[in-house]
Amino acid sequence: MPTPVTLDALNTCSEAEFVELLGSVFEDAPWVARAVAGLRPFADADALHAAMMAHVRGLPRSQCLDFLTLHPELAGLAARMGVMGAESTLEQGSLALAALSVDEAARWEELNQAYRHKFEFPFILCVRRHTRASALRIFAKRLANDRDTEFATALDEIGRITRLRLAGRIDGHGLANIAGRLTTHVLDTASGRPAEGVRVQLFETGGAERLLADRNTDRKGRTEQPLLDGGPLPTGQYELRFHLGDYFRAQGLSAEEPPFLDVVGIAFGIAEPEAHYHIPLTATPWAYSTYRGS
Amino acid sequence: MPTPVTLDALNTCSEAEFVELLGSVFEDAPWVARAVAGLRPFADADALHAAMMAHVRGLPRSQCLDFLTLHPELAGLAARMGVMGAESTLEQGSLALAALSVDEAARWEELNQAYRHKFEFPFILCVRRHTRASALRIFAKRLANDRDTEFATALDEIGRITRLRLAGRIDGHGLANIAGRLTTHVLDTASGRPAEGVRVQLFETGGAERLLADRNTDRKGRTEQPLLDGGPLPTGQYELRFHLGDYFRAQGLSAEEPPFLDVVGIAFGIAEPEAHYHIPLTATPWAYSTYRGS
Amino acid sequence: MPTPVTLDALNTCSEAEFVELLGSVFEDAPWVARAVAGLRPFADADALHAAMMAHVRGLPRSQCLDFLTLHPELAGLAARMGVMGAESTLEQGSLALAALSVDEAARWEELNQAYRHKFEFPFILCVRRHTRASALRIFAKRLANDRDTEFATALDEIGRITRLRLAGRIDGHGLANIAGRLTTHVLDTASGRPAEGVRVQLFETGGAERLLADRNTDRKGRTEQPLLDGGPLPTGQYELRFHLGDYFRAQGLSAEEPPFLDVVGIAFGIAEPEAHYHIPLTATPWAYSTYRGS
Amino acid sequence: MPTPVTLDALNTCSEAEFVELLGSVFEDAPWVARAVAGLRPFADADALHAAMMAHVRGLPRSQCLDFLTLHPELAGLAARMGVMGAESTLEQGSLALAALSVDEAARWEELNQAYRHKFEFPFILCVRRHTRASALRIFAKRLANDRDTEFATALDEIGRITRLRLAGRIDGHGLANIAGRLTTHVLDTASGRPAEGVRVQLFETGGAERLLADRNTDRKGRTEQPLLDGGPLPTGQYELRFHLGDYFRAQGLSAEEPPFLDVVGIAFGIAEPEAHYHIPLTATPWAYSTYRGS
Repeated sequence: MPTPVTLDALNTCSEAEFVELLGSVFEDAPWVARAVAGLRPFADADALHAAMMAHVRGLPRSQCLDFLTLHPELAGLAARMGVMGAESTLEQGSLALAALSVDEAARWEELNQAYRHKFEFPFILCVRRHTRASALRIFAKRLANDRDTEFATALDEIGRITRLRLAGRIDGHGLANIAGRLTTHVLDTASGRPAEGVRVQLFETGGAERLLADRNTDRKGRTEQPLLDGGPLPTGQYELRFHLGDYFRAQGLSAEEPPFLDVVGIAFGIAEPEAHYHIPLTATPWAYSTYRGS
Repeated sequence: MPTPVTLDALNTCSEAEFVELLGSVFEDAPWVARAVAGLRPFADADALHAAMMAHVRGLPRSQCLDFLTLHPELAGLAARMGVMGAESTLEQGSLALAALSVDEAARWEELNQAYRHKFEFPFILCVRRHTRASALRIFAKRLANDRDTEFATALDEIGRITRLRLAGRIDGHGLANIAGRLTTHVLDTASGRPAEGVRVQLFETGGAERLLADRNTDRKGRTEQPLLDGGPLPTGQYELRFHLGDYFRAQGLSAEEPPFLDVVGIAFGIAEPEAHYHIPLTATPWAYSTYRGS
Repeated sequence: MPTPVTLDALNTCSEAEFVELLGSVFEDAPWVARAVAGLRPFADADALHAAMMAHVRGLPRSQCLDFLTLHPELAGLAARMGVMGAESTLEQGSLALAALSVDEAARWEELNQAYRHKFEFPFILCVRRHTRASALRIFAKRLANDRDTEFATALDEIGRITRLRLAGRIDGHGLANIAGRLTTHVLDTASGRPAEGVRVQLFETGGAERLLADRNTDRKGRTEQPLLDGGPLPTGQYELRFHLGDYFRAQGLSAEEPPFLDVVGIAFGIAEPEAHYHIPLTATPWAYSTYRGS
Repeated sequence: MPTPVTLDALNTCSEAEFVELLGSVFEDAPWVARAVAGLRPFADADALHAAMMAHVRGLPRSQCLDFLTLHPELAGLAARMGVMGAESTLEQGSLALAALSVDEAARWEELNQAYRHKFEFPFILCVRRHTRASALRIFAKRLANDRDTEFATALDEIGRITRLRLAGRIDGHGLANIAGRLTTHVLDTASGRPAEGVRVQLFETGGAERLLADRNTDRKGRTEQPLLDGGPLPTGQYELRFHLGDYFRAQGLSAEEPPFLDVVGIAFGIAEPEAHYHIPLTATPWAYSTYRGS
């Protein structure tokens, strides 16, 4: 991928440079960048992205279908043979498709074939907004759509994919609706203070469990960095595990063995990839509460 | 085991019948029953049990040691060969010792040998008050005691074992401190009503997970029967799982996919086998609280 | 009022006795009792009450209006002159109408006149289901009804009034939907135990504040008796005050002066006079929660 | 009071200017400023304040007592006659002493006399850290101290008073431990969103009730500005009132009349004037929770 440049640089470079810099934002379609080069300067990255999408949406339908057809299949042969574009490879990597079991690979294959048979273009999904489980669920659901709905949905997903790619090309892009955030906060309501030094683990669940973060709360009862941020939060199921037993033992509380509360798990789902999920825990050795906060 | 009889029957039967009825309450020691037969009538089952224990505690130490020595080892050869008394067999069964892996059996063997070597009598534990994990933990801990402490502890455990056996022999025994209870209660704080029809599962955890109960809440938000009762609650780790996602979907709430809250797990420890653990859940589709109630 | 008798006695006494016992259940209308005496025996008190109401509802409309007209006005001249029936006097007493300020008395007078002018019968309300504030609010609201609605509402209220009166006449009446209940429960979630010895006060608010109960929680964290029971809970506004500061100080917690939490007030409304309101408090020196429980 | 200047200006001006600018930080004692002028430059305002306090604490005891003696009495004659220093007047104003009833004024007079009689210098208190109620309570408590303790306490209070005064003289002072903060946050846990448009009132209680703030929550469920900030939070009792009934009615919830929850009051004490008190409310129409957060 090219090194990110400023919007200013994009607005003032030659058309050839512009196409070189943004040509691969749309899969195998440098002509999208070329088509909007003459519309420069763009006031902000949102305007640039809007112009690119407007061009694609304005194509004659047959041409647009050709464009869709060029997209690689998810978990498809191209992915497994390593012959996709660099960014598609990276993006599909976030689904850990390489790690698919034989059964899962067969399920993807089956869905891909059914989809292509019904719609004549490949299934297109902004995979960074999904876990494997939610990608499969949405795949099955979209297969039931009619052709017009799915044609529109594929373009919407291309909008999401290219928006994220554009964000990676422009220094200080300022694009809205690009990233979500997951944060937590532990309050010790027995002592009325933030709980410092509580180990907090985040797992992706809803399939094979996968550890995503392992932190300790600071003296404000928070983790220094969000548990997830910097991009869309993959739709799916997660669990936070708070090691309260160790914490309260260190406070000299809860002498019982085993303690009433030890590792407290909060299982939750993420359905809005660009939202802020704040999931605090207020706890004593004998009680706890959580809620979706803000 | 003999059919339970009333205290009145025990107070008025012949000495021979009395010994037949209660002779096996103390392992291989019908002489305990014989020794207290002459003290009848007993005002209540507690007085009867106290008299039996007083007799044992009053024995010369060497005789008492002989008595301890007659007890079968936990997970020992006798257990595995099927040559223990009927009730010991039943009680040890509650630990599911038969299902021990080779490694676990070796660990028990090792502890049994070390214990017998140090104390010259077998490790005695009221197993109905323990899960396998807590039995092992307490075994290791007691191995570190000195001989006097352990002698006293063994007698205390015999007190607990025989108290439970006595409860099984006497109709309407009225013995205090015999049983604990685990109950729950689900409140839907979005609608201000008890949550009816929530599936609640109880698992023993802290080792291989084991399903102990699977219920639905009634219109009071409770399960018709306690989740655990009728005897001591085995010390150990548990998890309640509340299927809130299904419940709120049935209420027409939480259209998101996946829902923020779906199966809510409350992991907790039990350290007081004869206590009442009431663990309520108050919940909306976006928040929940729990605490050790009463 | 007559001494309560059993349903059996009512079913088997003479008609004259029956009318003497139940003649005043309907205001100035012993003929209601007389009319149903021949329908005896009644299976239960609910059947008896249903028969009486059916007779009243079955009257020609003009006769029914005459009957409504005989009811005393609420807070009206009859009340203030002491010339109402014994039970009306007692029931109106629950509103503490005698204690009306000059302005309030004027407001009642004004509403009474407007009502009688519009409907030609007095405003009828089961006052035991209301506080002064809610009685006034509902009076103003009902004044806006049309004549048919208000005619039906008046009969419904007579049903409620007479149901309560009947409950007072029959030993072990078994009548459903007669009484509500207000209970509480204090959990100390810092220690995982019921909070014993917490002073709990109940006030009627929504006008001049009135202390209704002043108790201490027992070792289960409850008050020995419900805070309100034995009849309908008057619709209105209330406040529970929990003296947590004193409680936690006695536990050796919360050395700060002033404590973060001292007297915790829970203000709530009652809108269902025959319901069970359970309002628990879970608290530490630094946090608390409440909810409408069951 | 002089216009605030930068620390840089204080470090580089003439001694005369320095004394003019800071001479009144210590009551009637420009010699404190003069004594530290030669120690310039100061690295920060904390170092400057430390130097001034060190000079005072280093005085011979008799001289230090003379200095204490020059302080005006709280609520004393000087206050009532308007002959105190400008800042003392302003500071005492925060106690609203002018509004003292005859009884309260008599109580202050009595305490002032007893204190002066026992200690031979006036009662000195950083009044901005207190409400009237807490000032009186601490006055009575300090009267019981011995002379050495009270001498040290008076100097500590002078440290607090002058620290706040210094903060007012230096642009961008950077002084630590000067101000507390009271914030809130309302979460609607029925809908999983911040509660927008909830009216929140803050009252000082613990005497005649006084409204301190009246706000509406924004779309983050917070008030745009802290409810209290910019200086120490006066030690004392407060109540937050959240108008939840109006909020939930506007959401189309809670059709009952009266609603179960209407105006929810959270009564709390402040004991740490320089701390951050965050007091969130999570609520549905049927339940709420609060805690001291951070």
